[in-house]
Amino acid sequence: MSIDQTSPAPRVGIVMGSDSDWPVMQAAAEACAEFDVVTESDVVSAHRMPHEMLAYGEQAADRGLQVIIAGAGGAAHLPGMLAAVTPLPVIGVPVPLKFLDGMDSLLSIVQMPAGVPVAGVAIGNARNAGLLAVRILAASDPGLRERMTRFQAGLRDAAHAKGEAVRRQSRPGSRLGF
Amino acid sequence: MSIDQTSPAPRVGIVMGSDSDWPVMQAAAEACAEFDVVTESDVVSAHRMPHEMLAYGEQAADRGLQVIIAGAGGAAHLPGMLAAVTPLPVIGVPVPLKFLDGMDSLLSIVQMPAGVPVAGVAIGNARNAGLLAVRILAASDPGLRERMTRFQAGLRDAAHAKGEAVRRQSRPGSRLGF
Amino acid sequence: MSIDQTSPAPRVGIVMGSDSDWPVMQAAAEACAEFDVVTESDVVSAHRMPHEMLAYGEQAADRGLQVIIAGAGGAAHLPGMLAAVTPLPVIGVPVPLKFLDGMDSLLSIVQMPAGVPVAGVAIGNARNAGLLAVRILAASDPGLRERMTRFQAGLRDAAHAKGEAVRRQSRPGSRLGF
Amino acid sequence: MSIDQTSPAPRVGIVMGSDSDWPVMQAAAEACAEFDVVTESDVVSAHRMPHEMLAYGEQAADRGLQVIIAGAGGAAHLPGMLAAVTPLPVIGVPVPLKFLDGMDSLLSIVQMPAGVPVAGVAIGNARNAGLLAVRILAASDPGLRERMTRFQAGLRDAAHAKGEAVRRQSRPGSRLGF
Amino acid sequence: MSIDQTSPAPRVGIVMGSDSDWPVMQAAAEACAEFDVVTESDVVSAHRMPHEMLAYGEQAADRGLQVIIAGAGGAAHLPGMLAAVTPLPVIGVPVPLKFLDGMDSLLSIVQMPAGVPVAGVAIGNARNAGLLAVRILAASDPGLRERMTRFQAGLRDAAHAKGEAVRRQSRPGSRLGF
Amino acid sequence: MSIDQTSPAPRVGIVMGSDSDWPVMQAAAEACAEFDVVTESDVVSAHRMPHEMLAYGEQAADRGLQVIIAGAGGAAHLPGMLAAVTPLPVIGVPVPLKFLDGMDSLLSIVQMPAGVPVAGVAIGNARNAGLLAVRILAASDPGLRERMTRFQAGLRDAAHAKGEAVRRQSRPGSRLGF
Amino acid sequence: MSIDQTSPAPRVGIVMGSDSDWPVMQAAAEACAEFDVVTESDVVSAHRMPHEMLAYGEQAADRGLQVIIAGAGGAAHLPGMLAAVTPLPVIGVPVPLKFLDGMDSLLSIVQMPAGVPVAGVAIGNARNAGLLAVRILAASDPGLRERMTRFQAGLRDAAHAKGEAVRRQSRPGSRLGF
Amino acid sequence: MSIDQTSPAPRVGIVMGSDSDWPVMQAAAEACAEFDVVTESDVVSAHRMPHEMLAYGEQAADRGLQVIIAGAGGAAHLPGMLAAVTPLPVIGVPVPLKFLDGMDSLLSIVQMPAGVPVAGVAIGNARNAGLLAVRILAASDPGLRERMTRFQAGLRDAAHAKGEAVRRQSRPGSRLGF
Repeated sequence: MSIDQTSPAPRVGIVMGSDSDWPVMQAAAEACAEFDVVTESDVVSAHRMPHEMLAYGEQAADRGLQVIIAGAGGAAHLPGMLAAVTPLPVIGVPVPLKFLDGMDSLLSIVQMPAGVPVAGVAIGNARNAGLLAVRILAASDPGLRERMTRFQAGLRDAAHAKGEAVRRQSRPGSRLGF
Repeated sequence: MSIDQTSPAPRVGIVMGSDSDWPVMQAAAEACAEFDVVTESDVVSAHRMPHEMLAYGEQAADRGLQVIIAGAGGAAHLPGMLAAVTPLPVIGVPVPLKFLDGMDSLLSIVQMPAGVPVAGVAIGNARNAGLLAVRILAASDPGLRERMTRFQAGLRDAAHAKGEAVRRQSRPGSRLGF
Repeated sequence: MSIDQTSPAPRVGIVMGSDSDWPVMQAAAEACAEFDVVTESDVVSAHRMPHEMLAYGEQAADRGLQVIIAGAGGAAHLPGMLAAVTPLPVIGVPVPLKFLDGMDSLLSIVQMPAGVPVAGVAIGNARNAGLLAVRILAASDPGLRERMTRFQAGLRDAAHAKGEAVRRQSRPGSRLGF
Repeated sequence: MSIDQTSPAPRVGIVMGSDSDWPVMQAAAEACAEFDVVTESDVVSAHRMPHEMLAYGEQAADRGLQVIIAGAGGAAHLPGMLAAVTPLPVIGVPVPLKFLDGMDSLLSIVQMPAGVPVAGVAIGNARNAGLLAVRILAASDPGLRERMTRFQAGLRDAAHAKGEAVRRQSRPGSRLGF
Repeated sequence: MSIDQTSPAPRVGIVMGSDSDWPVMQAAAEACAEFDVVTESDVVSAHRMPHEMLAYGEQAADRGLQVIIAGAGGAAHLPGMLAAVTPLPVIGVPVPLKFLDGMDSLLSIVQMPAGVPVAGVAIGNARNAGLLAVRILAASDPGLRERMTRFQAGLRDAAHAKGEAVRRQSRPGSRLGF
Repeated sequence: MSIDQTSPAPRVGIVMGSDSDWPVMQAAAEACAEFDVVTESDVVSAHRMPHEMLAYGEQAADRGLQVIIAGAGGAAHLPGMLAAVTPLPVIGVPVPLKFLDGMDSLLSIVQMPAGVPVAGVAIGNARNAGLLAVRILAASDPGLRERMTRFQAGLRDAAHAKGEAVRRQSRPGSRLGF
Repeated sequence: MSIDQTSPAPRVGIVMGSDSDWPVMQAAAEACAEFDVVTESDVVSAHRMPHEMLAYGEQAADRGLQVIIAGAGGAAHLPGMLAAVTPLPVIGVPVPLKFLDGMDSLLSIVQMPAGVPVAGVAIGNARNAGLLAVRILAASDPGLRERMTRFQAGLRDAAHAKGEAVRRQSRPGSRLGF
Repeated sequence: MSIDQTSPAPRVGIVMGSDSDWPVMQAAAEACAEFDVVTESDVVSAHRMPHEMLAYGEQAADRGLQVIIAGAGGAAHLPGMLAAVTPLPVIGVPVPLKFLDGMDSLLSIVQMPAGVPVAGVAIGNARNAGLLAVRILAASDPGLRERMTRFQAGLRDAAHAKGEAVRRQSRPGSRLGF
């Protein structure tokens, strides 16, 4: 681990099986950053480095992590295997691969046996994984919760603004032409 | 709300669209109880009492809840609608109905748009929803985290014991008969 | 709402979760316009502005709307939530997103619990939602019903014309080359 | 047709491909009856009596029907074929058969081509088809709309009552045993 | 019908819901032409010209047709409706549309109720529909059966030739580079 | 083969991978018998007796068979393999097994490559396979075609009779109680 | 491990996540026993005892195992994780659970990333896993290969015997009654 | 067969239904080549040259092959048919075609009846088929097993290197910009 010494310790670990998952997974890091939640991102592969993967999970809590976000595609074993060795909440992001639109990833992530939960989010939706991590931290952090509430208000305002666009386009005289 | 006055305030709210979901959902309450995490359980229907549903979500954090578990079947809108009005983490349990084996519930729960995450668990697996709620609380509670670690050790011990049963049944001279 | 004062009051409300749904949903507006049924179009997001969404549904009938068309993708909650708060018929258009070809949207829209119906149409087929709205109005409006009958005759004529194209292309000497 | 002469004319026609669909489809008739909407029920098979089926659709409006509810399973062609020959709104109920849990029925019903809409409801949910028919009539009938609004209030009250059951069962000392 | 008078009477009717299906369906005509089986091709839409569709099916046998090939997409009702009104064998070609990869078409075509069979072929595989029509005619025509047997021998020869290509490409020194 | 010497030669061969398929497949034999079409039934397994299976297919036409009906479940290879070695039309019946409701059988049967068609019918619907075989023979046999037309008239009459049952049950005073 | 000292060393390890999988998995042991291939059976849970699971995989080859059969249901991670730490071939048996008919298990098992193969067999078909293990051993063991060939001949003989049953039941005078 | 005389005899046969499968299947040959496992590649079509296909399977063991890899798409019968006539282990590669993302191929390959196993790998993942073949040979070849173990170590090293890329891109000051 080569996290910059002077940075505050990351609270959320974002891991994935390969650097090819990064274009999908970086949205999780960005969402956390919007809330000033420090993250670390790394490749931790269940199938290619299983011992390091277990070690990552087992040391996560002691290293100060509070949430783990794991992205994986196909037979997506990473989130479930990390959940097996950490008491922390693990969020799984189903990464869609070339075939099946991520349905294999989704089922491999959420259909965990009783005793070892993984929190699944939408296919390819790493942003929601990041926001879920923030909510998890906010569960015990009123200040962060307040920021999440403001963020949600911002979603509402943005939706209102989008309504103006639709109202304008659909008005008589617009390209609908009636 | 008629929660007993002398009880400690619940930290996890378990809600469902109908009392017919209770046989599935009570496993969430039981899992929390194993960790002495106080829960409340109630019917909160997105489709039948939408205003009360929004009010439940909006007041949840102020009432002291830190996590919401919502079970729903079919066009399962309850988890997502609660997530829209609370900054708390919301866990969705896909309740299987008579047809489709819960696939409709699963997709209705996890496929949320960017901005409003729901944490999906396995179809019908309310126990995992409870355990995920405990992990979420444990993210900021070392004592609870320690209990979760011990719980996981217990799972290991139980699995070992089950191995003895399989080894005995599969041994020469057993009912395999070879 | 900034509907032009001098316009006749809209009878059909067309709503969607985001302006990105407009390219799909405008076909509903166009279909209504072909029958001189006045519509309004707006962004009403179940997840980003839930209170305004409920208000839209609750005021719809009093504002003179007779049918609501709601388009939504993924965990498509908008049609069902509107149906929960209005006595009007609600038509849901499953908007296909990047993955799953709209199957998640379709199931989230049609699989509603008993008591709160939504009328689902084909994936991405907002034109049919508009035509269904016209038929609903026509159920109590003989003049409109007559126009729908003429419209259906026009479909038949157009199909006949297409037959000529196929007959020509398939004839000996055409590019089939036999 | 042997509808009793002294009865008021039916406004909703409920048709199905076989009398074996009646156990599913009668819930549509019951829902309409709760609103004093007169219905007629009959077997009209697209595959076994196609001419009578077309005639049923073509005469429906003139006979005073305002909505048609059609239930069908498997390659469910009845709703779509009726929609082809009537300007009335047609509601399709996917009847689940022995295999595939009604997915074939659902897709055969909703995936109609542009121009000929069918309003699909949930698999096996004829009650919602009946309620949707009532809403369609209510779109032009304030009195009926008022009754639908009261019906929805009743759903809310029933949901509240169910909440009491869940709260009691989940209370300390109940069978949860904690 | 404007079939050239001097042509031999068509034995196979190839119909489809729209001329947009022709690029898929012409492969059926081509396959028949390879066996000198005369076909006719036309647009016959179940949903847009239901009466003409029934008439087509009912007159088919008297007009000398022996097999009907019907292509349709989405809620594909054409093959099943034709099968309801003709005693001839009807072959259904599931035409894939923009979404669902033709699964809706396939299920709408093959899942017919007992009594009214349709012969389904692979999604988008109109060539096989044409070849199946030839086999059906060949069932009572030894000469045509002999040609089909030779055709199958040709498939074998072509497969052998393709093997040479694979053997060459996979040989040491080829682009595999080992 | 031990077909009774004095019987007329069978025109339709009904084969299946195991005698456990017989309860499903006998409906094909019964349908043919209703039209006095003589059949033979046998176990011919693609996976357990591949040479006999190929021989069955290759000799079928010379033995006087005109149609082959093959039932198979799971990775259902029998219909496609027979189609590879006979010029006769082959009808495939997807036999549902314990899991997947016959979807694996259906796809294994219909998704044949261009050049080697199989005619797929509904999952578990061997009766339709038998009726399709009769239609195939009827394509070149006006007498049989006439019988099929009468059979279809019988379906219509039976459907009419079922309508009486539904009309009676749905009448005021019946168990619907309104 | 408490394998009887005097037994020959097992060549195939059969593992599963819980003793509840034994009723499915014992068929793998039985299949091997029919070929006198010695097996061991044990519970090795990826999620409940991940370290022991990795150890099992890593020591398997040194302990003399040549093939591993792993059964798992739902988010079936056991076969893939074992494949990550052993160079031996790993066969995965998708165990069907209460919902989804084993589709989740199948996809979690077969959809492995490039580099780490798992050999998937049919849902719930542990017998085939056992037979595949025998074939794998037979790849380097002519005597075992000869036995497998004889076994396959036995399948053929059994299929022939089943044919007699079908021929008898379908004969004129049998319960088909024609 | 035109295998170069001076080459060592191939141990793995790679076959496919058409040369159009070669772009997918060559990855199997390449994987074997990385381990100096000699392969042969050829077109062997179950549907177009069934006798040669059976002959290929029956002679495979005598010709010195120890494993067969068969790629096929759609109604993928080749792997299962080869498994029916050889005692060798057969690996099936589901080749994705234009529609259905290879789900039809996957089910046609893995869902084999008890008695005749096929080893299925991921959709389109011929590389894993090659690696599985190497593992199968390695089950009886300590040297090859050692090479597979080193190969797996290489996967681990490559994954570590990829981690550096992700850590760099996600660091403060990188394009994430936080």
